[in-house]
Amino acid sequence: MAKGASQRYARRELQTSERPRRQQTFTERTELQYARRLVIKLGSAVITREDEHGLALGRLASIVEQVAECQIDGRECIMVTSGAVAFGKQKLTQELLMSMSMRETLSPADHTREHAGTMLEPRAAAAVGQSGLMSLYDAMFAQYGVKIAQVLVTKPDFYNEETRKNLFSTLSELISLNIVPIINTNDAVSPPPDIPDDEVAGGSGRRGISIKDNDSLAAMLAAEIQADLLVLMTDVDGIYNLPPWQDGAKMLHTFSSDHRNTIKFGEKSKVGTGGMSSKVNAALWAMDRGVAVVICKGTQERAIKSIISGRKIGTFFTQAAGSSTPVEVIAEYARVGSRVLQALRPEERAECIRILADLLESRQSDILAANAMDLEAASKKNLAKALLSRLSLTPAKLKSLSSGLHKIAEDSLNNVGRIVRRTKLAEGLELQQITVPIGVLLVIFESRPDSLPQVAALAMSSANGLLLKGGKEAANSNRYLMQLVKEALAKFEASNAISLVPTREDVSDLLSMEKHIDLIIPRGSSDLVRTIQEQSKHIPVLGHAEGICHVYIDKDADLTKALRIIRDSKCDYPAACNAMETLLIHEGLMRGNFFNDVCSMLHNEEVKINSGPKIREILTFGPPAAKSMRTEYGALECTIEVVSDVDDAINHIHKYGSSHTDVIVTEDTNTAKHFQREVDSACVFHNASTRFADGYRFGLGAEVGISTARIHARGPVGVDGLLTTKWILKGDGQTVADFAEGGSGSWLHQPLPLSES
Amino acid sequence: MAKGASQRYARRELQTSERPRRQQTFTERTELQYARRLVIKLGSAVITREDEHGLALGRLASIVEQVAECQIDGRECIMVTSGAVAFGKQKLTQELLMSMSMRETLSPADHTREHAGTMLEPRAAAAVGQSGLMSLYDAMFAQYGVKIAQVLVTKPDFYNEETRKNLFSTLSELISLNIVPIINTNDAVSPPPDIPDDEVAGGSGRRGISIKDNDSLAAMLAAEIQADLLVLMTDVDGIYNLPPWQDGAKMLHTFSSDHRNTIKFGEKSKVGTGGMSSKVNAALWAMDRGVAVVICKGTQERAIKSIISGRKIGTFFTQAAGSSTPVEVIAEYARVGSRVLQALRPEERAECIRILADLLESRQSDILAANAMDLEAASKKNLAKALLSRLSLTPAKLKSLSSGLHKIAEDSLNNVGRIVRRTKLAEGLELQQITVPIGVLLVIFESRPDSLPQVAALAMSSANGLLLKGGKEAANSNRYLMQLVKEALAKFEASNAISLVPTREDVSDLLSMEKHIDLIIPRGSSDLVRTIQEQSKHIPVLGHAEGICHVYIDKDADLTKALRIIRDSKCDYPAACNAMETLLIHEGLMRGNFFNDVCSMLHNEEVKINSGPKIREILTFGPPAAKSMRTEYGALECTIEVVSDVDDAINHIHKYGSSHTDVIVTEDTNTAKHFQREVDSACVFHNASTRFADGYRFGLGAEVGISTARIHARGPVGVDGLLTTKWILKGDGQTVADFAEGGSGSWLHQPLPLSES
Repeated sequence: MAKGASQRYARRELQTSERPRRQQTFTERTELQYARRLVIKLGSAVITREDEHGLALGRLASIVEQVAECQIDGRECIMVTSGAVAFGKQKLTQELLMSMSMRETLSPADHTREHAGTMLEPRAAAAVGQSGLMSLYDAMFAQYGVKIAQVLVTKPDFYNEETRKNLFSTLSELISLNIVPIINTNDAVSPPPDIPDDEVAGGSGRRGISIKDNDSLAAMLAAEIQADLLVLMTDVDGIYNLPPWQDGAKMLHTFSSDHRNTIKFGEKSKVGTGGMSSKVNAALWAMDRGVAVVICKGTQERAIKSIISGRKIGTFFTQAAGSSTPVEVIAEYARVGSRVLQALRPEERAECIRILADLLESRQSDILAANAMDLEAASKKNLAKALLSRLSLTPAKLKSLSSGLHKIAEDSLNNVGRIVRRTKLAEGLELQQITVPIGVLLVIFESRPDSLPQVAALAMSSANGLLLKGGKEAANSNRYLMQLVKEALAKFEASNAISLVPTREDVSDLLSMEKHIDLIIPRGSSDLVRTIQEQSKHIPVLGHAEGICHVYIDKDADLTKALRIIRDSKCDYPAACNAMETLLIHEGLMRGNFFNDVCSMLHNEEVKINSGPKIREILTFGPPAAKSMRTEYGALECTIEVVSDVDDAINHIHKYGSSHTDVIVTEDTNTAKHFQREVDSACVFHNASTRFADGYRFGLGAEVGISTARIHARGPVGVDGLLTTKWILKGDGQTVADFAEGGSGSWLHQPLPLSES
Repeated sequence: MAKGASQRYARRELQTSERPRRQQTFTERTELQYARRLVIKLGSAVITREDEHGLALGRLASIVEQVAECQIDGRECIMVTSGAVAFGKQKLTQELLMSMSMRETLSPADHTREHAGTMLEPRAAAAVGQSGLMSLYDAMFAQYGVKIAQVLVTKPDFYNEETRKNLFSTLSELISLNIVPIINTNDAVSPPPDIPDDEVAGGSGRRGISIKDNDSLAAMLAAEIQADLLVLMTDVDGIYNLPPWQDGAKMLHTFSSDHRNTIKFGEKSKVGTGGMSSKVNAALWAMDRGVAVVICKGTQERAIKSIISGRKIGTFFTQAAGSSTPVEVIAEYARVGSRVLQALRPEERAECIRILADLLESRQSDILAANAMDLEAASKKNLAKALLSRLSLTPAKLKSLSSGLHKIAEDSLNNVGRIVRRTKLAEGLELQQITVPIGVLLVIFESRPDSLPQVAALAMSSANGLLLKGGKEAANSNRYLMQLVKEALAKFEASNAISLVPTREDVSDLLSMEKHIDLIIPRGSSDLVRTIQEQSKHIPVLGHAEGICHVYIDKDADLTKALRIIRDSKCDYPAACNAMETLLIHEGLMRGNFFNDVCSMLHNEEVKINSGPKIREILTFGPPAAKSMRTEYGALECTIEVVSDVDDAINHIHKYGSSHTDVIVTEDTNTAKHFQREVDSACVFHNASTRFADGYRFGLGAEVGISTARIHARGPVGVDGLLTTKWILKGDGQTVADFAEGGSGSWLHQPLPLSES
């Protein structure tokens, strides 16, 4: 490290001693983005190759890259590193290999390598490695124009008041010079003795941690220099509630003070001197002194940057008192609650819904008060008027919501346990297929708080567990409405069946918990749906990301109907997913006035028109070219294209559509039949507006969503979409052996009427 | 690079000049594992940071890591690298910054950095960078004990016969000394002039490539030193059929000779001197000279190792003549074919199936001949007897298969287009929900070739497109049977609807093609199912990975029935997924003889018994402890555990079961009802064997599979599981505006009988 050079750098800040202490410790991951001073501790396991010969260069480089980026971004990084042993081992191995005779090196390379490796003594290796590792760090950080300084410490340095003071003043100086101090214990001379806590110099609780390993060293350092964040990198994902290999072991994303005595640790990690419990102790020690701590897997890609961006990497230590229930636990409760709901009689489930409906009216003033808080916050943020009106609850809205819920209650009696198939398999062997809830649903909805009681009622009516995540803007309204939901469920001890998911981050976690969540229903913008669909890898998502709906006007169309249907499809509610985006016109109609009539009607409605490539060939002057035939405008705008016949229209729809809703306008029944058979969309209409594609309009009751998926549910989905089935067989001791050749049984497979008599 | 040290290394092999030319060029990716001599070319875009200041160290380190691993594994690597310019730029920037006044450096760091960067001239940067880059390589490779040598070349070196000869003999020497040559054009003195191909020294086609950039340099080198594989790393995923940003652009996993003139290239890549077409030319040039080439994205994680392991990374250049149709195309054909099938009348689809059924009998001798080839190959491999018998087709099997197909044909008439719901929404507005095929199915089955015609017939009957992948052992049988399927479909020009997927690798690709595949059905071992479920991220998988079925013997059980049911559930076909794995016994029954009776019955049947923890508490001497309560033995082995009552049994099943099939044996109807309501499994039986959980036994016709998923289909799945629905609305010009408040329309939502009259 060039000392001369560092002096040419400007001091970027006050010296540490003068640095004002920050206001409070970070208690949420999202606050970590404000962490300015970081201590990063690399366990040797992180940067040692799996075969333990030398460094895992890629990993080390990636960590250097991240530290350098942090430094360039204006953060102050201190690294505590191990790895000199591994580095030295490699170097010594090489030397040994080189000094071997040719005959020896001719034997398989791996063998000699391993042999040479075992000949090395760790302390010798450390001595050799120290310089090599530092020069490697130097070369790597130089790539980013980041300067480093090696600080080699031994344990006595910490226990002697004067050397300790010198050490920290050196560190402060380096930090203020924008230099990254790289700290290592001097492995070569100092195998850390095991001095118990109370023998520590000074003896005060303030510095009362014994430096047993680099973890405690890093913790002490972090506390001493008032770091904001300490990252302890290790070889496991984080802290588990049980030894990780045990049944039921779960990684803790958050370790709060109350976990202190509830965690059992396994054996210490294979590589490195610090076991898991020593890491946790170091972390708790630092946390108690105001340093946020994350213990994470060092090999995790871009771990440091992810932690700083607030992502759930590793275990975050927080002092947040009584931190909220982990989301896995909420999900498990929902599963158990769902089973309670399922065991109720249909009338009891209906009663839950009715209680909720009544609470919506009797607690009107409280609901509106909670809602007023949200509205006030929103108005300060200058939210768009449309958003504000969606967010706002009114006595009228609550009344209509309540009566909607009474309707759901009424319709709910025949949902769960309904027989959908009955077969007499053989004499005395009757099979029933009955409806059952899907299990646990995760519903993510945007700001409208009225969705909450409605979705909750649908879950009750179908006996599903439900996790709900509403928009942040409606936080107060949602929290209060959820209280009412739980109150309604409490009568039958099913309060756990439905809960709010606290944070957006929790949603991300839930998306990968296929054991806990059976179906995800995002209700909101197509961006929301698309994001959820992409993130959920193994849990089905009910919904549609796109609604590119077409209206095709056939040559045999009644043109008055056509104009009506086009206007309604586009203009009734342009933001809806079932609004028309593309109008296809039979080329025969281009000769008359129809095209002009359509255009002037759309002009009157203030619809912006874009045109497809074929229409542009026909017209000398026409509307501007559409950027793509696959655009969902979601506004008063559309594309018009010409097609040569019904099959051309079908092909266009298959090529550019989103299988949502497509319409033909024609008076020719055969053409309509052909179109309705061939178009492969969830909804295919004849002489009706695209806007009819809706659960309520279809008579399905409350709408759960519209699905463009091809399995489970397709098109508008009512409460049936929240149900699956199971098979119930009643026998009298039958075995399949009875039905083998020559057996006494014989198959009947006789369908029975659905209602038992 | 220490020259002295290298001499101490043994020569690992013959000199290159003496190295025997390998037998043939690699034409398949799977052969790349045998590639011994590799030329790896890093584009500067690969190792330059996004902000273009300096190297992306992590990426470079990862490439070094992989090259070193290859070298250690006994391969011979040659690197062609750019990046000196970027390296030098960074270095010069630093120097500039250091020489600036304090005042300047106090201004925002990014600004000065950028400013300094723009002041640099590329050639100066290259000169500065060259030595720095090499010493960085040296330090990095030293981590792995791998020696490198810098070889700086200029264009004239290649065109002068003597210097060229010297160059290659130096390279051969280095390779034989187990040293990695790192080759770079001397950017500092040699801006490559654009000499057209025909002016190249020698003028022979053999070396007729002009060295325009590092791509052509690498290609020439690779050909000259007879490399097995050339990897050209760039900043895009591979070669596209169209410029990547254009609609319909697809990456080509394989670039065969026939693509030569069909590809359009976009602008050259942003960074680096070599555009895409120059890369392709270089690749083709090398390919023609027997070098396998892969063009890939350098930032792809562990690209080199992935390529060598045969994974589909980047674009693979192969001379394989008339390479098979890409699997995406086969899938698209299946989609189109499915639409043809769907447009047929049900009788026509049934006729297809009947034609196939008849072909199975009329072509019996050809089928058996194809099967005989498989059997012969299998017997050479000493396959297990059970496998051989599954693989073997016989006249009797074909006959029964044929009659099974006739049955499927008969049942198929009411599958597609069946009305499942009819509603009169309003006057003149009738809604129908009708069955339609799911789309394109991917079915993966293990060795039994009889599955092929059966699954094909189910696809025909449900008008689905179908991609089938059978076991390798049945390759000949499957190929011939598929010919018959296509023959049957040909009558209605739907041959493309059903195809074989050529390779296992193609299956992996299909698993991520959610646009092409709508449902995946793995039919085989639970390992197969689990693998497919894990790999398929966005396409639903119909099946079950586990069948941990329980039989619970209640205190009120008829013990004779219990013994019958236990025997049948465990012993009828122990390998089946619906065989019993765990027997739960009410603790009240432990006082009598029942436990002994069960054990001796199971002993007689040669069933090995393991015991749960609770039973071990009761018994002093009992069966050995079960390793886990969650074991699927799939053999004559089971676990027995004791439970305190029916609820304890239910809890046990929820905790350890797989939601497949669970049975209660009891004479108490209420207990049975309770069990059947509460147990959350696909099949819950009362007084009947677990083995009844089967599509045929349920009367569903041919079985598609058994699903433990909670959506779409659950339990045994018949052809209904291959269908979805769409919504058909017939109107007369209605708009939703008509139904708004004060409009002329009014909702009826009146259910109609399913059959139209």
